[in-house]
Amino acid sequence: MERILYHDLIGLLEGGEYVALRGQLIEMNAVDVAEFMTLLDPAQRILVFRLLPKDLSADAFAYLDSDLQADIVTSISNRELYTLVDGLYIDDTVDFLDEVPASVVRRVMTVAAPQTHELINKFLAYPENSAGSVMTSEMIELHDRCTVAQAMAEIRRSGEDRETIYTCYCISDSRRLVGTVELRDLIFHEPDEFLRDIMDADESLIRVNTHDDQETVADLARRYDLLSVPVTDNEGRLVGIVTIDDIVDIIEAENTEDFERMALMQPSEDTYLRTGVLSMYKNRILWLAILMVSATFTGKIIEGFESKLALVAGLTAAIPMLMDTGGNSGSQASTLIIRGLALGEVKLRDWFRVLWKELRVSLLCGTTLAVLNFARMWLLGSRNLLMILVVCAAMLSAVVFSKLVGGSLPLAAKFLRLDPALMAGPMITTIVDAVTLLIYFALAQTFLF
Amino acid sequence: MERILYHDLIGLLEGGEYVALRGQLIEMNAVDVAEFMTLLDPAQRILVFRLLPKDLSADAFAYLDSDLQADIVTSISNRELYTLVDGLYIDDTVDFLDEVPASVVRRVMTVAAPQTHELINKFLAYPENSAGSVMTSEMIELHDRCTVAQAMAEIRRSGEDRETIYTCYCISDSRRLVGTVELRDLIFHEPDEFLRDIMDADESLIRVNTHDDQETVADLARRYDLLSVPVTDNEGRLVGIVTIDDIVDIIEAENTEDFERMALMQPSEDTYLRTGVLSMYKNRILWLAILMVSATFTGKIIEGFESKLALVAGLTAAIPMLMDTGGNSGSQASTLIIRGLALGEVKLRDWFRVLWKELRVSLLCGTTLAVLNFARMWLLGSRNLLMILVVCAAMLSAVVFSKLVGGSLPLAAKFLRLDPALMAGPMITTIVDAVTLLIYFALAQTFLF
Repeated sequence: MERILYHDLIGLLEGGEYVALRGQLIEMNAVDVAEFMTLLDPAQRILVFRLLPKDLSADAFAYLDSDLQADIVTSISNRELYTLVDGLYIDDTVDFLDEVPASVVRRVMTVAAPQTHELINKFLAYPENSAGSVMTSEMIELHDRCTVAQAMAEIRRSGEDRETIYTCYCISDSRRLVGTVELRDLIFHEPDEFLRDIMDADESLIRVNTHDDQETVADLARRYDLLSVPVTDNEGRLVGIVTIDDIVDIIEAENTEDFERMALMQPSEDTYLRTGVLSMYKNRILWLAILMVSATFTGKIIEGFESKLALVAGLTAAIPMLMDTGGNSGSQASTLIIRGLALGEVKLRDWFRVLWKELRVSLLCGTTLAVLNFARMWLLGSRNLLMILVVCAAMLSAVVFSKLVGGSLPLAAKFLRLDPALMAGPMITTIVDAVTLLIYFALAQTFLF
Repeated sequence: MERILYHDLIGLLEGGEYVALRGQLIEMNAVDVAEFMTLLDPAQRILVFRLLPKDLSADAFAYLDSDLQADIVTSISNRELYTLVDGLYIDDTVDFLDEVPASVVRRVMTVAAPQTHELINKFLAYPENSAGSVMTSEMIELHDRCTVAQAMAEIRRSGEDRETIYTCYCISDSRRLVGTVELRDLIFHEPDEFLRDIMDADESLIRVNTHDDQETVADLARRYDLLSVPVTDNEGRLVGIVTIDDIVDIIEAENTEDFERMALMQPSEDTYLRTGVLSMYKNRILWLAILMVSATFTGKIIEGFESKLALVAGLTAAIPMLMDTGGNSGSQASTLIIRGLALGEVKLRDWFRVLWKELRVSLLCGTTLAVLNFARMWLLGSRNLLMILVVCAAMLSAVVFSKLVGGSLPLAAKFLRLDPALMAGPMITTIVDAVTLLIYFALAQTFLF
């Protein structure tokens, strides 16, 4: 954050003015404190960590990168570690334990209070990217037979260390989730009203199962503008919630995954700068190799025509232009469909509308490009009219074909329950290349030889 | 929503069982009511709209597509329209007025209460995608000299029609924003404490200006896990807030824009199915044409070498494979950097680390692909060892070069204050094609002729 003068803070730290430094830090946001700590060397970082009040140190800790977290945990006493784990929300503890070496995990587990220990074990067991793995158990649970006054008293009693108190969850005797009540509703209702009379409760109460994918959580929150989504087990008992700040992170992570898949990479677990060279290599090489090998087809098509290509000047020179334009046209169409599917704006049943729209758009684009190409080749001095027309016709066919393929393949992938994001530019290009060349050579064969 | 049986609701509607239908609808979420209304014909839609209680009808209206909104507005009486506009939040009114024909806007403006009229005019004047254009003015403003008890009374008095009451904004006598206080803080503090003693207030109080881009709002909310972001004018006076549900929509819209830019399209204003064929053509054709014309360079390079290509069998056939692999390698690198820049995980100052990482990854990928290609060509029966080695060396160079270009161009765009998303696959491919061919032909020239 440019607005914050970390430089001044480092001055205080190096000058040993710890009281003044602490005074500045406690006025700051935990995110900025974490960023400041990232700039320090390990000894300074521990010093700053120890200067912070309990809540702020835990909050800032939650925003640090996992290697710095592991560093801190190995440098503090068991007593300090106990306080830290006590101050962290369970989802942040689990996030952190997921990333650090086993020795650090063991130490945290030894030190944690028994019920925390048990909770951590339970949370670590949920599958990666499931609702269970991203939820927290620090929510407000209220009995549906409570009155508003009792509910407010319960919130005042236990709310201080809950991740949110704005949506409260109503449970039955058997701990089954039966409704939700917003804090704003509690404030606007009379103290003696019963929760069960004012809560939102119907059969379509929005909730997810612990094993649902985190994407489902994000989709529901986005659709219904929720501040948190409740997570229930197979018996319908409330076991946790996912709050909007984590949902925003899930949305960005899912988008990143789509961006990576569309460039045919395995999604990486970490940010660019923190991913190792070897795992980057592993994420990228598979599809590069598959696509390179599949270019054998294109090579074979050209090989079969190689002797004839030499007969008409300029035939070979047009190949890259046709291939690139086809690839670009296809990746425009596929990008829009992939994105539309991801946001739920395009559904499988729309396939006919998609094809019809792509057909019209591609005829317009293809015709424009063909005319432009005619002018381009003429201006460059080519006077073989038939040859120019063959290139133009191939151009039009390539654009129409690749837009139809680009519009269809993501839908086909969705139908086959594959990730539509795989059917983006690079994949489309490889398929479109071969067909474009076949059309081009067929036209040349018919009109030029 | 598959979970909801719209079919049953349509049954009630067609059977004329309006009381039962209303009973079902008022239990439903406004989003689902809007989806249900989308399925109906215009006459039925108005009927359902009139069945709904005031708040629910306004909420559901806000979720409808703009053509259906315009339909409804032209079908209802002035009195109903007044009630509707009164029930809508100002940001939803402005969103809707931004999209509908001028005649509908005039009618709404005539009917609206004078202060609403004035507010709408002010909001419509903010530039597109600015914080001002997405904010709402329905927030809780509290004087910093209030006590907690006075604040709670004010929230109870005016909170019912505020978009959020969970973050309240503290203002000074001159209406300048001086701090924020969370509803949860009010609940945990004593009634006689003063807001100015408990509010978050420091010089780095998070806020945006009305003219800041909506992306800034989203970035701040994501970084600091905020439920709403305050918007101030040039004098620091509070004029509105942007709430988290709108911020989630902004995040998705910004991501969609990046996806579209990366496939070299102008971002569209509407969803895929609702964008007309002509505007789709306009969004796509510009870059297709630019890239097609710039393929002239690639064509020229091939033309200069055309006579020699014919001399060695297989030389031409390898061109598509080299070009595609170069393009794919480059688009992997550029995608990661574009995404890293968008999320703030990669900064301009990291350019050296990016190049160093891409160099190592590309050497690994390039070597693997070269070896694989050697095997491929050998297995396909080629026995011209020197020619195979030339293709392999060109492959390695193409991968290294395109990964370095793919890693650099988004950073260069950022440095030049252009959108890094433009430097994605299609743009990289076009640049990489020419260089790959030059390297390939230079190697062939040296070793084969």
